[in-house]
Amino acid sequence: MKLAILFGGASFEHEISIVSAITVKEKLSRFELSFIFCDQDHKFYLIDGAKMKAVTFSRGEHRKMAQIFLTNGGFEQRGLFGSKKHEMPVLNLIHGGDGEDGSIASLFDFFNISFIGPRKEASMLSFDKHYTKWLANALGVKTLPYEIVHKSKKPTITTPYPFIVKPARLGSSIGVSIVRNADELDYALDVAFEFDEVLLIEPFISGVKEYNLAGFSARGEITYSIVEEPQKAEFLDFEKKYLDFSRSDKVTEASVGEALVQQLQNAFKTIYLPLFEGALIRCDFFEIEGEVYLNEVNPIPGSMANYLFEDFSGSIQKLLGALPDKKAIRVNYDYIHSISQAKGK
Amino acid sequence: MKLAILFGGASFEHEISIVSAITVKEKLSRFELSFIFCDQDHKFYLIDGAKMKAVTFSRGEHRKMAQIFLTNGGFEQRGLFGSKKHEMPVLNLIHGGDGEDGSIASLFDFFNISFIGPRKEASMLSFDKHYTKWLANALGVKTLPYEIVHKSKKPTITTPYPFIVKPARLGSSIGVSIVRNADELDYALDVAFEFDEVLLIEPFISGVKEYNLAGFSARGEITYSIVEEPQKAEFLDFEKKYLDFSRSDKVTEASVGEALVQQLQNAFKTIYLPLFEGALIRCDFFEIEGEVYLNEVNPIPGSMANYLFEDFSGSIQKLLGALPDKKAIRVNYDYIHSISQAKGK
Repeated sequence: MKLAILFGGASFEHEISIVSAITVKEKLSRFELSFIFCDQDHKFYLIDGAKMKAVTFSRGEHRKMAQIFLTNGGFEQRGLFGSKKHEMPVLNLIHGGDGEDGSIASLFDFFNISFIGPRKEASMLSFDKHYTKWLANALGVKTLPYEIVHKSKKPTITTPYPFIVKPARLGSSIGVSIVRNADELDYALDVAFEFDEVLLIEPFISGVKEYNLAGFSARGEITYSIVEEPQKAEFLDFEKKYLDFSRSDKVTEASVGEALVQQLQNAFKTIYLPLFEGALIRCDFFEIEGEVYLNEVNPIPGSMANYLFEDFSGSIQKLLGALPDKKAIRVNYDYIHSISQAKGK
Repeated sequence: MKLAILFGGASFEHEISIVSAITVKEKLSRFELSFIFCDQDHKFYLIDGAKMKAVTFSRGEHRKMAQIFLTNGGFEQRGLFGSKKHEMPVLNLIHGGDGEDGSIASLFDFFNISFIGPRKEASMLSFDKHYTKWLANALGVKTLPYEIVHKSKKPTITTPYPFIVKPARLGSSIGVSIVRNADELDYALDVAFEFDEVLLIEPFISGVKEYNLAGFSARGEITYSIVEEPQKAEFLDFEKKYLDFSRSDKVTEASVGEALVQQLQNAFKTIYLPLFEGALIRCDFFEIEGEVYLNEVNPIPGSMANYLFEDFSGSIQKLLGALPDKKAIRVNYDYIHSISQAKGK
């Protein structure tokens, strides 16, 4: 079964996408894999599988490989004597900007390329944590209370200390701080504003239970991963999360009761359907006094959360076989014909 | 000043985009214009200005003209002896799908093409009327109450008759009905479900005042159009709105008090900044008991609402001179370098 893994992107998460792709490569060895690297200038390269190492990209060696171009139905490799077309479904593994903000989804829809990953609406609503709040709220899934701070406006924060400051549109804990008192606020805001002009403020609840659940829908049925209780420092910083993207060892299932698993799966399903069809996503939850709260949606989780699935390879195969079709709109020229006729032309 | 007008698209509003482009062509004759047609298969053609007539497209004559391809910084015209690059800012005039759903914005951002039109987030939040409600609500701009109906679920509508049924993601009144009693409901739902799987139900308020206001921001200052009270039948149906897209005669300013104009402008500004920067949009409002309600946002209004501007050509020029830059993200390989060093490779 053919599958291309797309990774890289002009994003703060460019490097972790590379790590993710290398990890997934090992996990999907049953597939006939190709590797497509998107560099920071939005050039695409077809990468030799044997060269799928981090240093290939940090040393710029990808530039010696074949450049390919988007074309209807796939990618085109141009040569002196004509061009070769690469047509296969693509696993979008670009984390952060480009991959998760709706750009790749729009490009692939537009160029009629079949792909695993969030569609453009799903991307938009999960990429910005602020919009995820709107989504969860509209669907009746609980989230923590929050406030928004804009770079251009003087912040008026009413959330009591301690609280968390997060850039609205970044994953992987980049730019995130816990603020314990007023002295720490300015620095935390400065750090976060390095990455985004809009920030989210949420209460920091010490010792809150966290649970991660991944899954996808295929042919009307949701496949859930096991529930993981992520090991945590106070919160996962970028370096720890970075390592997370290379995870490939299956984790131990969290020892939680059936009732909580059911609650987590229900919340997952409510968020997932129908918006995230075509994607394998990971939802990160809090549990507070027996109630489940959505923390965030990762529509392209690090290394595709392979370590949470009993049969990761089989899961990807199942999802590939049930990717949503883009509804084709056929244009007719009825109005123009009727107007032309009325004018006698 | 160079400017390309992009029109067409794989959308239910394909035809009205053609009409819009023909109208805008006349209004922007001061510019050095090019015309780029996107057909329903997402092929781009460079259209001879003299052939900018509706029948060119309904007869398929555009296919005899030069096909062009997206490339970094512009469009590429390929020939036997090399290729020619067309680099100029683009006015995105594709109404509905492709143009207003974030696809074109994503493509142009990705390919680093400067354009007038809503950016991807702005597109997504205005294309789906349901998300526009979330946006307006979060910003404190009033909208009518609403309910959502999904194709896959049995509708439970609590809005009292009469109400309006609208496809969530279509403009130009396509698929919209007024439902006066239970007998009319099924038909109205069927019609609307032809165009979208998600519908909005809103109370129909007979005789409500409607006001349209267009505008854009450039260099920190908003230019507002005059306020128009659209002439209306009970509501504008597609055929009437279709004619609307060819409007070029300046309209008479609505005779409304300064206080209402101020309210409309305030609501416009609240919605516009900073999300819609780069676009000239038209907001359609209701006035109910002295209060302003947002009906919808048209981020690419028919014929760019040229008829609402004192100096349309000058407005477009002003906007062109102040298009938002896409923040470039430069990738470094710090983590990969540090890991490689730790491994001694």
